[in-house]
Amino acid sequence: MSENIYVGVDLGGTAIKVGICNQEGQLLLTHEGPTETEKGTQVVIDNIEKYVREIVEKSPYEWDQLVGVGAGVAGFTNVVEGIIVLAPNIGFRDVPIRSLLEERIGKPVKIDNDANVAALGEAWSGAGRGIDNCVCYTLGTGVGGGIILNGKIYQGFSGMAGEIGHISVVPDLEAIQCGCGKKGCVETVSSATGIIRMAKDAVERGDRTVLSNVETINAKAVFDAAKAGDEVALRIVNRAAFYLGKSMSAVAAVLNPEVFIVGGGVSYAGDILFNEVREVFAKFTPEPLQRGVSILPAQLGNNAGIVGAAGLHLRS
Amino acid sequence: MSENIYVGVDLGGTAIKVGICNQEGQLLLTHEGPTETEKGTQVVIDNIEKYVREIVEKSPYEWDQLVGVGAGVAGFTNVVEGIIVLAPNIGFRDVPIRSLLEERIGKPVKIDNDANVAALGEAWSGAGRGIDNCVCYTLGTGVGGGIILNGKIYQGFSGMAGEIGHISVVPDLEAIQCGCGKKGCVETVSSATGIIRMAKDAVERGDRTVLSNVETINAKAVFDAAKAGDEVALRIVNRAAFYLGKSMSAVAAVLNPEVFIVGGGVSYAGDILFNEVREVFAKFTPEPLQRGVSILPAQLGNNAGIVGAAGLHLRS
Repeated sequence: MSENIYVGVDLGGTAIKVGICNQEGQLLLTHEGPTETEKGTQVVIDNIEKYVREIVEKSPYEWDQLVGVGAGVAGFTNVVEGIIVLAPNIGFRDVPIRSLLEERIGKPVKIDNDANVAALGEAWSGAGRGIDNCVCYTLGTGVGGGIILNGKIYQGFSGMAGEIGHISVVPDLEAIQCGCGKKGCVETVSSATGIIRMAKDAVERGDRTVLSNVETINAKAVFDAAKAGDEVALRIVNRAAFYLGKSMSAVAAVLNPEVFIVGGGVSYAGDILFNEVREVFAKFTPEPLQRGVSILPAQLGNNAGIVGAAGLHLRS
Repeated sequence: MSENIYVGVDLGGTAIKVGICNQEGQLLLTHEGPTETEKGTQVVIDNIEKYVREIVEKSPYEWDQLVGVGAGVAGFTNVVEGIIVLAPNIGFRDVPIRSLLEERIGKPVKIDNDANVAALGEAWSGAGRGIDNCVCYTLGTGVGGGIILNGKIYQGFSGMAGEIGHISVVPDLEAIQCGCGKKGCVETVSSATGIIRMAKDAVERGDRTVLSNVETINAKAVFDAAKAGDEVALRIVNRAAFYLGKSMSAVAAVLNPEVFIVGGGVSYAGDILFNEVREVFAKFTPEPLQRGVSILPAQLGNNAGIVGAAGLHLRS
């Protein structure tokens, strides 16, 4: 087996997940271990090195076949300098992770934020395989995004391109404050957090719904209720879908991507979400900008970040 | 004078304007003549060839210094094949202009639509000089757009990127139908046509305004009235600025450009428009996406298209 391999690292708050990809983006092997954030930066870096060495050792590949290591992290990254500027959930601030890891591993290292590497993973070997231009949404606690142009992550002027969760789509009178400090962002309605908030509001208002117990409502409960015909839950799902679809319509007018890929926990809702999103997209997007354009569920699930991180050496 | 030169062609319905640029995008000489659309495709092509030869002849440059010719046209273009698919105001349908002109002129020819070449002109040697990533709005009869990434026009999946006049920003209850078939596009409020429509509506409603005579109202009259303190006119200008600024906020979240450039007739309104646009942009755009970002008036006026067309050989 003489092919080149790439290791992707998903650097999370509790676990570090690593995976080996070949140059087609096929995920061949995964491995993981605790991050041990509480022990400080040095130990976290030690752990990354350890898991990278372990996965190659337990694989059928030789160390020499490893071309490079890529890492994705939730937070602000300086891609050009290879620095994690701020990653609250692992306690990193201005950590020059690229140079630290390159010194230990002896291989080129690249980094990017979690939304961008997930987008690249899906574009490379998930729902966007073979597609040059796609835009990925990750619907989780927030709404993350990544823009893939000509097969590569597009960073923008200051590395902030793809913050599509912060497209302001909700009209002023209905808009609520977003974590970013502005009002009406798609993230306020189409994230799991947004869906849960709308459900809690409905329950507290006394709306007639099977939803109850504001302590334990989650996005899945809302989707399940909607599928079972609960009208309040359905209204919430449609609202989440409406503003998501409307934001895609704006993205289409700017970038004319071939594919929109939607991943993250909320995307598991399936057709009840996607059908409405497609309908709203069709409603607001001029016909020539719709032609040939698809809105697809992500395919790689939680592995998108590992695959995309591995792909940073080929696609950035 | 041994430098390379490029000729840009602005192919309009009544006149064909041509210009010579050097490789820095400096416009050195212009020339023009009638399009003679009524005489058919063959004569229009003859005329383009004629004006291109004439401008080089009357310039201090030699024919051998001419590297290539670029042309911009209002309509749908197939940039890859060099075909004008549909240009109603010159009566072209599926005209393979690149091959026709290359045969006659014996130089490489490139084409693109008017909004894209204007954007490239401004990016190359106008308000975006030295900037890699910028987004240009042209506020005229409609709202045209062009996206410049890494110094080049970005085309998107099917050549439709930059249709930013069709970002849907007006809430449903206030939205009117756009020429594109959808509702709420920024073009319906921020174009000259949109401004004139709002003014006529106000006059016909009997609003207290110095504006009158619905037959002759134009965008300049509305801006002049607003500057003189007319509240109805000011409300119209603010509404045009509001949705323009809001659309820029969406574009910023997608692409994080360094500069927005605003040209076209409506942009001559100056500060009364730009101040409001900047304020709205600041209101809806997360702070990190605002940092270092400018909203600037275009600098090349009607020559942007000629310059950008000339630049197609260096920047596409």
